Amino acid sequence: MDYSSMSPQSVKELIRKGEITCQTSGMCNGYAQANLCILPKELAFDFLLFCTRNPKPCPVLEVGDVGKKEFKFMAAEGDVCKDFPKYRIWEYGELKSEVTDISDYWREDFVYFLIGCSFSFESELLEADIPVRHIEECKNVPMFNTNIELKSAGKFHGNMVVSMRPIPDELVVKAVNVTAEMPRVHGAPIQIGNPETIGIKDITKPDYGDSVTINPGETPVFWACGVTPQNVVMQSKPPIAITHAPGHMFITDVKNTSLKF
Amino acid sequence: MDYSSMSPQSVKELIRKGEITCQTSGMCNGYAQANLCILPKELAFDFLLFCTRNPKPCPVLEVGDVGKKEFKFMAAEGDVCKDFPKYRIWEYGELKSEVTDISDYWREDFVYFLIGCSFSFESELLEADIPVRHIEECKNVPMFNTNIELKSAGKFHGNMVVSMRPIPDELVVKAVNVTAEMPRVHGAPIQIGNPETIGIKDITKPDYGDSVTINPGETPVFWACGVTPQNVVMQSKPPIAITHAPGHMFITDVKNTSLKF
Repeated sequence: MDYSSMSPQSVKELIRKGEITCQTSGMCNGYAQANLCILPKELAFDFLLFCTRNPKPCPVLEVGDVGKKEFKFMAAEGDVCKDFPKYRIWEYGELKSEVTDISDYWREDFVYFLIGCSFSFESELLEADIPVRHIEECKNVPMFNTNIELKSAGKFHGNMVVSMRPIPDELVVKAVNVTAEMPRVHGAPIQIGNPETIGIKDITKPDYGDSVTINPGETPVFWACGVTPQNVVMQSKPPIAITHAPGHMFITDVKNTSLKF
Repeated sequence: MDYSSMSPQSVKELIRKGEITCQTSGMCNGYAQANLCILPKELAFDFLLFCTRNPKPCPVLEVGDVGKKEFKFMAAEGDVCKDFPKYRIWEYGELKSEVTDISDYWREDFVYFLIGCSFSFESELLEADIPVRHIEECKNVPMFNTNIELKSAGKFHGNMVVSMRPIPDELVVKAVNVTAEMPRVHGAPIQIGNPETIGIKDITKPDYGDSVTINPGETPVFWACGVTPQNVVMQSKPPIAITHAPGHMFITDVKNTSLKF
């Protein structure tokens, strides 16, 4: 099945039915994808402030009203409990389980946060004739923890997570320019070619996602990643949090072009 | 005294001493200015969410930690209770008083919000040889209530306020381009040349600030304005809120150029 040219509605129907539970890179070309973090209202101000202070890894696309599972802006209809292919349940910073539906976990005091995802700009990279390796290799994007400490806010603190794409040397500047236009889905890279300066010791061993081939003549390029909130949850240890599983995103009804500044 | 070429530190010292209590347009060229809204923690999530949902009129530059008067990011030192030339105290949406120091009103549960201000891009307009009429006429910028309903969030709802600058017809496109680069201080205009479509009946009678001359061959251009939170406070009627007086801004230590995307 070629999901790249399918509509968000069609793909989400398959996700809701549990027929797609895999990662979503390359699906529904041209449409923005989103990361998820769900927290109780009591922690929502601190977390929204954390995102406001760290817009590069945590660009807020939408925040739900307290207790509401329905999307307000990024999708015409849907249910935040069913529309991601896979979720992670966290207690005091520890991963408790992975599930494909969180309806049974939902609480009336929960607030969901949709955060921009770099999968959104991959169709723009392809459009500009810049190859995207993990799509070519049918894998999840490689993601790494870094030593980049973020600005804390109330109970939340932690380090940035990045995604990596190997880019042919002569296309690196083009890749910067294409993605810089889209700050709401992480924008321009945060590091080019020097993984060790951001604390990445082994580029072949990602902390999340899959390892991909880096060919001679290619530079590893690092973008801020929406898995950052999971790292922040691990480090800040809130009593309860629900996130998506890395790479298993929400496909919005909003085109990337409408997220450009 | 020519405040336009003075440093933010020098001007703020005069403001703290009560020697400057006037509006700040044209002061400290090149440095970003900021609007203010202070609310109790209890309302802070709703208000931050309101700003997140309405980034054009309410671009958040900084949010203080609960109870903290010291700036974290936009200024090296200072006191949110003294560093604006004039404040407004609001109770249940009614203006109770205007003061030049709010130290006596400060509460341990207060959170301050600094919001981007269009005064920030005026030096960029001047640099591009685009005249700024209210600076030429030594006045406050004219500001208007509009019929543009904003996205509500929790207890907060209301309409957008805009600032108006008459721009020579042949420079309108240039003015759009110059300001579009600065989304954190309201960015590109929201209306060009048709005040009635956004509910402005009489362009010579601003709701806030001063009236300025519009010459033949000039188009009135409207930018989203950081007085919007005051309008939202009037419409949403929180028990207590403190804002700056329109035009009487905080001058940050951050250069406009560093706020560009």
